[in-house]
Amino acid sequence: MDERIRQHAETLVDWSARIEAGDDVVVSVGEGAHDLGVAVAEALGERGANVVTLYSSDEMSRAYLRAHDGEFDADPPHELALYENADSVLFLGGGRNTMATADVPPETRQAKNRASQGIREARMDTDWVSTVHPTRSLAQQAGMAYEEYREFVYDAVLRNWEELADEMAKMKEILDEGSEVRLVKADTDLTMSIEGRTAVNSAASVAYDSHNLPSGEVFTAPHATEGEVYFDVPMTINSKRVRDVHLTFEDGEVVDFSAGQNEAVIAEVLDTDEGAKRLGELGIGMNRGIDRFTDSILFDEKMGDTVHLALGRAYSSNFPAGQEDEANDSAVHVDMITDMSEDSRMEVDGEVVQRNGTFRWEDGFEA
Amino acid sequence: MDERIRQHAETLVDWSARIEAGDDVVVSVGEGAHDLGVAVAEALGERGANVVTLYSSDEMSRAYLRAHDGEFDADPPHELALYENADSVLFLGGGRNTMATADVPPETRQAKNRASQGIREARMDTDWVSTVHPTRSLAQQAGMAYEEYREFVYDAVLRNWEELADEMAKMKEILDEGSEVRLVKADTDLTMSIEGRTAVNSAASVAYDSHNLPSGEVFTAPHATEGEVYFDVPMTINSKRVRDVHLTFEDGEVVDFSAGQNEAVIAEVLDTDEGAKRLGELGIGMNRGIDRFTDSILFDEKMGDTVHLALGRAYSSNFPAGQEDEANDSAVHVDMITDMSEDSRMEVDGEVVQRNGTFRWEDGFEA
Repeated sequence: MDERIRQHAETLVDWSARIEAGDDVVVSVGEGAHDLGVAVAEALGERGANVVTLYSSDEMSRAYLRAHDGEFDADPPHELALYENADSVLFLGGGRNTMATADVPPETRQAKNRASQGIREARMDTDWVSTVHPTRSLAQQAGMAYEEYREFVYDAVLRNWEELADEMAKMKEILDEGSEVRLVKADTDLTMSIEGRTAVNSAASVAYDSHNLPSGEVFTAPHATEGEVYFDVPMTINSKRVRDVHLTFEDGEVVDFSAGQNEAVIAEVLDTDEGAKRLGELGIGMNRGIDRFTDSILFDEKMGDTVHLALGRAYSSNFPAGQEDEANDSAVHVDMITDMSEDSRMEVDGEVVQRNGTFRWEDGFEA
Repeated sequence: MDERIRQHAETLVDWSARIEAGDDVVVSVGEGAHDLGVAVAEALGERGANVVTLYSSDEMSRAYLRAHDGEFDADPPHELALYENADSVLFLGGGRNTMATADVPPETRQAKNRASQGIREARMDTDWVSTVHPTRSLAQQAGMAYEEYREFVYDAVLRNWEELADEMAKMKEILDEGSEVRLVKADTDLTMSIEGRTAVNSAASVAYDSHNLPSGEVFTAPHATEGEVYFDVPMTINSKRVRDVHLTFEDGEVVDFSAGQNEAVIAEVLDTDEGAKRLGELGIGMNRGIDRFTDSILFDEKMGDTVHLALGRAYSSNFPAGQEDEANDSAVHVDMITDMSEDSRMEVDGEVVQRNGTFRWEDGFEA
């Protein structure tokens, strides 16, 4: 086995999920993630954890969803019980075709999402972590050769997380003390309240309320969003390529939208439920180890000098204890990214925090 | 998709497992069983069942078991809850290397088996069905070309199950009315009591208390076994090839044993627990559609003119209601096969029922 796969598994199990002896762990293995699955199984065996292994097959999902009449039972009890009794869930992404579910009718997808609310919540109540095994399919989506992509992934995953956590703590402090964030760039002037919210220093570990490996962002849950925003980074949403999304917000809700490609996907997302029209996340990418967009949200949204906003579900970790119920509980969480490296600025309470990709505490910053 | 795969899935879901809308189904997919998994997912979607998909990876199991210190927690709650809340479990076997767990220490395997008793019972309380997807690995084990093996499997699986069930009912009646079975052939003279037991007409459907696809056997749970038996059909047990097993029973327990190859595997099995030294099953193979041994117990034990005996766990379906507690509750169930086609006879209560492979009700039978 490639030693990097073993290191990836150990980073996931030890740094990210903090697995200990006796933990009841669910491991979800994508169609192309078998090798990482083997390494994770080895690490979990060494730690003395108890494992249930799920097969997360896009082709099986497609076949099931297309054959179903769309009247899904809510939260099937066997699936719910599995997650309710789990301490941790490790998602090992990495399929063989990122377009494998492209022909599932959107209304079927939405109906299944709506019927799975309790299961999603039970999963998110665990110490869950999402990571990805570098597959040829993901390399293709990234526009990279397979070996090149593997190096890209392991560069992003196998790094000094404690050091990055220290740097991101600066941004968290600014957001925790602030009450309004404003983004300004071409076609963008958006204000969001972050009053009463707690920012998360997402350092790729559940110990930081961070659930992605790799990570490297500081995120919070905005509300009372007003204005317009332009997402210039192309993304794949529901297996469709989406470009040049413009959203206009009034009173916290999307009131107008457009996209340069596959606009219907945005309509589909917004149509899921009430929460899908409101933001659930504002994230500030601070991982400069990720040096290019690869059409994978797990990596793209962490890239330095970007900001992402998610329509839909918010993370309860952004809310003070007892106020988690206020979190956007949409069935969807769709991230979209805007490049902040040029002709742009981010303000907190009227003070510039980042301009043209340079933070306030960095050399070359111009207020 | 090969139309036979779809027919296999439909036979499994409809004839075997009798899945209906709203059923909570666990599907366990072997490393090489993806294509059957897709077809089963489609069938389950059409029926409106709810699905949790497990990945049954021999390589992950090996890595986990070898890394573990062997002190396994009993019945982890997340795994137990999954099965306790499931209506049906569909095992889609078919790996990529039948020897994938060959280097797992026997004591680790035994310890894991012992720690999983409750989970095994919860699984067996569901309408579970085991089947197998024809993989190249299984073709290799069978000594057959891939396409040849696929034809062999589908010939065995895609047949008229109602017709076979009618024929097997004759054997069930003889066993239900009898109290003692005797097997006589070279190196074999074994008597077993079947008093108080109910034979199962295993017609590949939970409606017949039958849990294998393909099936085609009539089985019961013998006790008070006395004498010696020779298993001349080679088998793979715990990933090891075992040949020419001789067992000697006194008072229902194995008191002496030998094997021509990998005798230590038999010692390992017998050493698991008390129940492993006693028989849990006597099965009479009646599926003449299976025309050769392929080193797969799922097929071999169903072959016409064979008898198999299992050390260990008995099926509760062989016990009258309320007496299921009497069933052998060993952590193992290891089948071994003897050829009854030549120079052999099976008697029930002193009367010959089968001689040299011909049953009492068939042409050419000699009492």
